[in-house]
Amino acid sequence: MPQEPLGVALIGTGFMGKCHAMAWRNVATAFGGPPPRLELLIDTPEEKAAEMAAQFGFARGTSDWEAAVADPAVDVVSITTPNAFHRPMAEAALKAGKHVWLEKPMSLTLKDAEEMAALAAACPGQVTLMGYNYTRSPAFQAAVKLVAEGAIGTPWAFRGVYDEDFCANPELPWSWRMTHEGGGLGVLGDMGCHLVSQILPLMGEITEVTALIDTVVRERPSPDGPKAVENEDNALALLRFASGAQGSFATSRAAWGRKCRLQWEVHGSQGSLVFDQEHMNELWVFRKGEAGFTRHLSGPDQPDFGAFCPAPGHNFGFNEMKVVEAREFCRAIAGGAPCGPDFAEGLKIERIIHAMAASLGRPVAV
Amino acid sequence: MPQEPLGVALIGTGFMGKCHAMAWRNVATAFGGPPPRLELLIDTPEEKAAEMAAQFGFARGTSDWEAAVADPAVDVVSITTPNAFHRPMAEAALKAGKHVWLEKPMSLTLKDAEEMAALAAACPGQVTLMGYNYTRSPAFQAAVKLVAEGAIGTPWAFRGVYDEDFCANPELPWSWRMTHEGGGLGVLGDMGCHLVSQILPLMGEITEVTALIDTVVRERPSPDGPKAVENEDNALALLRFASGAQGSFATSRAAWGRKCRLQWEVHGSQGSLVFDQEHMNELWVFRKGEAGFTRHLSGPDQPDFGAFCPAPGHNFGFNEMKVVEAREFCRAIAGGAPCGPDFAEGLKIERIIHAMAASLGRPVAV
Amino acid sequence: MPQEPLGVALIGTGFMGKCHAMAWRNVATAFGGPPPRLELLIDTPEEKAAEMAAQFGFARGTSDWEAAVADPAVDVVSITTPNAFHRPMAEAALKAGKHVWLEKPMSLTLKDAEEMAALAAACPGQVTLMGYNYTRSPAFQAAVKLVAEGAIGTPWAFRGVYDEDFCANPELPWSWRMTHEGGGLGVLGDMGCHLVSQILPLMGEITEVTALIDTVVRERPSPDGPKAVENEDNALALLRFASGAQGSFATSRAAWGRKCRLQWEVHGSQGSLVFDQEHMNELWVFRKGEAGFTRHLSGPDQPDFGAFCPAPGHNFGFNEMKVVEAREFCRAIAGGAPCGPDFAEGLKIERIIHAMAASLGRPVAV
Amino acid sequence: MPQEPLGVALIGTGFMGKCHAMAWRNVATAFGGPPPRLELLIDTPEEKAAEMAAQFGFARGTSDWEAAVADPAVDVVSITTPNAFHRPMAEAALKAGKHVWLEKPMSLTLKDAEEMAALAAACPGQVTLMGYNYTRSPAFQAAVKLVAEGAIGTPWAFRGVYDEDFCANPELPWSWRMTHEGGGLGVLGDMGCHLVSQILPLMGEITEVTALIDTVVRERPSPDGPKAVENEDNALALLRFASGAQGSFATSRAAWGRKCRLQWEVHGSQGSLVFDQEHMNELWVFRKGEAGFTRHLSGPDQPDFGAFCPAPGHNFGFNEMKVVEAREFCRAIAGGAPCGPDFAEGLKIERIIHAMAASLGRPVAV
Repeated sequence: MPQEPLGVALIGTGFMGKCHAMAWRNVATAFGGPPPRLELLIDTPEEKAAEMAAQFGFARGTSDWEAAVADPAVDVVSITTPNAFHRPMAEAALKAGKHVWLEKPMSLTLKDAEEMAALAAACPGQVTLMGYNYTRSPAFQAAVKLVAEGAIGTPWAFRGVYDEDFCANPELPWSWRMTHEGGGLGVLGDMGCHLVSQILPLMGEITEVTALIDTVVRERPSPDGPKAVENEDNALALLRFASGAQGSFATSRAAWGRKCRLQWEVHGSQGSLVFDQEHMNELWVFRKGEAGFTRHLSGPDQPDFGAFCPAPGHNFGFNEMKVVEAREFCRAIAGGAPCGPDFAEGLKIERIIHAMAASLGRPVAV
Repeated sequence: MPQEPLGVALIGTGFMGKCHAMAWRNVATAFGGPPPRLELLIDTPEEKAAEMAAQFGFARGTSDWEAAVADPAVDVVSITTPNAFHRPMAEAALKAGKHVWLEKPMSLTLKDAEEMAALAAACPGQVTLMGYNYTRSPAFQAAVKLVAEGAIGTPWAFRGVYDEDFCANPELPWSWRMTHEGGGLGVLGDMGCHLVSQILPLMGEITEVTALIDTVVRERPSPDGPKAVENEDNALALLRFASGAQGSFATSRAAWGRKCRLQWEVHGSQGSLVFDQEHMNELWVFRKGEAGFTRHLSGPDQPDFGAFCPAPGHNFGFNEMKVVEAREFCRAIAGGAPCGPDFAEGLKIERIIHAMAASLGRPVAV
Repeated sequence: MPQEPLGVALIGTGFMGKCHAMAWRNVATAFGGPPPRLELLIDTPEEKAAEMAAQFGFARGTSDWEAAVADPAVDVVSITTPNAFHRPMAEAALKAGKHVWLEKPMSLTLKDAEEMAALAAACPGQVTLMGYNYTRSPAFQAAVKLVAEGAIGTPWAFRGVYDEDFCANPELPWSWRMTHEGGGLGVLGDMGCHLVSQILPLMGEITEVTALIDTVVRERPSPDGPKAVENEDNALALLRFASGAQGSFATSRAAWGRKCRLQWEVHGSQGSLVFDQEHMNELWVFRKGEAGFTRHLSGPDQPDFGAFCPAPGHNFGFNEMKVVEAREFCRAIAGGAPCGPDFAEGLKIERIIHAMAASLGRPVAV
Repeated sequence: MPQEPLGVALIGTGFMGKCHAMAWRNVATAFGGPPPRLELLIDTPEEKAAEMAAQFGFARGTSDWEAAVADPAVDVVSITTPNAFHRPMAEAALKAGKHVWLEKPMSLTLKDAEEMAALAAACPGQVTLMGYNYTRSPAFQAAVKLVAEGAIGTPWAFRGVYDEDFCANPELPWSWRMTHEGGGLGVLGDMGCHLVSQILPLMGEITEVTALIDTVVRERPSPDGPKAVENEDNALALLRFASGAQGSFATSRAAWGRKCRLQWEVHGSQGSLVFDQEHMNELWVFRKGEAGFTRHLSGPDQPDFGAFCPAPGHNFGFNEMKVVEAREFCRAIAGGAPCGPDFAEGLKIERIIHAMAASLGRPVAV
């Protein structure tokens, strides 16, 4: 962990902005180490930035993100803005010598992501981290450990989905997020990348994808009449892994009733693992010879749980995954081991989701 | 329902043979109509046939299936033998003028299935029925009804798997069932066809599949040393439907811990349905505007449940699906409405699973 | 098993009558042994008896139960009529020298049950069996075996409920079953006795109960205006066991949404067992040192499952429990080991539920 | 909410101490209002207090709790120490004019609790709040609201348990917490009181309890040889409510495999509610006329969820319940509505659990 407190700038105060704020406020409380200095909160307009800075306990609020990311009191920048801002903000922060913690996906286009990764590679002393928080839950970390230790033998098949229903209602109005220019990819960029971020640590490299995408609600109401939805609501894919394993992948933002169903299973030669983020405190394990799946409730026997609570079955929460991620970021800055998807690893995830978007039912190497 | 009792010959006394026997014994008890005459039970050797005939309550036992299917006392033939016998037995029975109830899959090869369907088409007064029993559960029938009534709007996506683990153990010995010649397809013929039999009533016609298959245990022990497994342990597919919907499909006989996980979900414009055969008495329904999925326990409000029990939540069993299937068969013989996959419909299922087996990752029209 | 076929008379063709019929029809199919002779089906009026005899495959139908139970072709009598008929029918059958299989509860009053048990004791060559079918499921039998083998150490606590909702609707009309004279006990006689029938094999003798009962819908509509419900809708009890263990007990016929929630758990010094009849094919087992509860899906590794199906996870059904019970009855008649609650054991259950009904919140020794 | 920042002293840095710290750090982040001043952290020895103050972001650390609770910079005192310290610390804080937030139970004895409540009543401008955090989850708050609104009609029955297994292992060493003098009540004080804290808002006043208690592991190892466990491992009770409803209650610290099973159900005249804290983000609701229970995943449609996350199904965590509790405490200090169990309400809970401990199987009025 860092020896000196890190100076933090946080851009954005919405869903993930608040989540980052709570994480920065409690990373030291949970894990020890010097509590960060919460220097700058960025939002627009200026008054909102000031108000949210007071609420989140940041020293200053501002609407000038360019000045903020270059501020000498700032060591690290958390970026939680809409996707179109990811590239300019991350690049400005890197060029200003800062460490960057960026919500997924990296950018609107694959080319953007490639250039961001190239810039990060050119800043070797600066840490980048992508916000793939679902890889931080104790249950997921335990799953990765079980696979790595051979608890289920050789993984030979994967099945995974990530479904929500926030776009299931055909009456949901059109927005610029549903365009290529405004939002980039659809569900693949918003949700599919999360699933990929879990597949890679569990299964290793993906070498080929074959995918179908679909926009199930093709037009949505707007004040100017119906407008076309450009990016995909659903995506399905077949996967080949470098290991020889095969897998299936599906994601939808229009699956009525699903709220955060990031569900997957790994079938190995000696057992199986099953997980569903809607029950994020349960990991189901089957080992050859056992009578059935064991429901393993999260507890201090899984990574990082004990920093929050010593008692098993006392539910770990969504926001606490972000506290773990903050700790990983701090640890990497202090020279610790690699800590999850940096921009180079993040680019791999981008290549996979963009390959899916481009596949049109044909196999594509990645 | 038939006015005169049907004379039954049943070939096979194993897993599905016993299941057919119990169904024939209770079809009238459950549904009314004239109880069938249980005439001939066929097994080898002769003594076993006699012994099982006594146990199952059949008038006679014999090892001579060719004589049996032509016996004048016999109106219908239940065929529950290994796949390699399906074609000769079904054809002999059809040629002898009998109605035929045949366990899935139809045959070892697609060509066999085509010829069987052609023969059935040439016997218009004779009913054929494939043994796709999972389509007979009250919950599945209720699901089909809900989709047909528009309860979830337009179905726009499907996800389904059928996994078991009977071949998961790498130490399981090699058998002739694992060869193309002896067993035909692997998991696609054994299990995948069941999943297809449920997809079609829920989603309508499939127009294209893109599939990967995998033999995860490539050699298995035999008394003569390790031998190659020829047919597939796992299959994955992307589906396109005539309706424009898309779907994913997966099946494995090597998924540790799964015992009868025939699990699927349909996402529609107004709601979702979710089902898992391991919990065959539960249908999960989400309708737009509701707070969450409703767990609908099977009861007399679902088709055919009430013929077995008037009380909801009193579990319908696996074997009772076969009693429903027997009733459908009897009803069709008595001139009732079409009753599920006959040989013509069964051939459609065969075309789909053979297309998957041949796809090798490329889209194949079906 | 019996060497000669048993001649069967069955009284009643409703819910449990049909269930007995299906059991008698398939007991030999499932388990071997000589198939019983289905001699007499009793119902009123005469025409219905004849019609149901044809449907259920009995040789003859009659409305004269007194003649039927004395018929020389009859060896065993299945009694599935309303509770008020249990005593006269069972006694007539016993006096005619028959074996008696009687649906629970034994009778309307404890005194009736005592006299029935006394008569049964005076007929030592005749087998009596109470219809406590829930004790016949493979999962329950497996649970009893696990406890007996010490798999969870010394059982030190029990919790159990049996809830349904068939009387939850305040608009459900009044019936004579809701009176002491017509129905005897309320939910305790209808459902609570089933829970007791499971507690005894799991936990051993009960020595004391302290119970509250409640009639939550005190008046119900009738054609003559609202009438009083006399017997209890709900019952709650504390239990002391001879072993020193303690337990809780609850049952309701007015628990909205519960359909067959016969749910219990046993806490032992080395582990726990949990079961819910609505998921009758799952037994949950926790053993000291394990990471969580194991979900054990019923399969041929549990008692009697394999006689119906060789494949685990292929659901055992409610009606199949009765086939197992029929087998136990036949086995006992053939001189086999005791087979579950006979009238003497059934009387113990009656004493417990009547003690609960009489407790009024005070401890009562049983 | 308060207009001026509150000055906080927190006593204790263990399980609940850390939980309070994280709550104080994020109460304003989540809910707005002036962030509190984290003034004093109290632990022993002095060095640990200083170290934890740095980690938790408190201005100062000290081992002198008496000075701390009287410190002029302090407005509120969080007390998270072992039960034996609750009374002296709470009383000192009240006498120093502070608001007091105290972890449950109130004290070792009922007499202590009575005197604490009397003192609190004598300090009318000072807010007291008991740490019954399980009443703060969005799902529980939603349940209370549903009952209050009549969504399930008149509640006529309650069933509840709270089980864990931290004392299930007979080899767990003896500790002073297992004595009356050191620990007070056993599982009733530790866990049973939490269940009572949920019963009261759901069901209203309890008028009578009849309970059994049991110490299932009567001696435990210590360095000086086996020593007696004085307080109870298990408790069971029957409940009568002022409304006329009846209920059952059970709690165990020795239920192998249970980690935080605070599970209850309410049966009403028009529906049922079911909840289990191990799945704290699910509320199961059945309304008369519906096909089954609805699984309502927590989301912003339930109270307080949206302050943490705008997306349903993104799990609320155990520690976040404490943030809600901190907000209630702040709101009450600022003159808001009553906010849960203060010392007067807490005393009611104490009376109930002490009545259970004293019942010995006889009805006790409370």
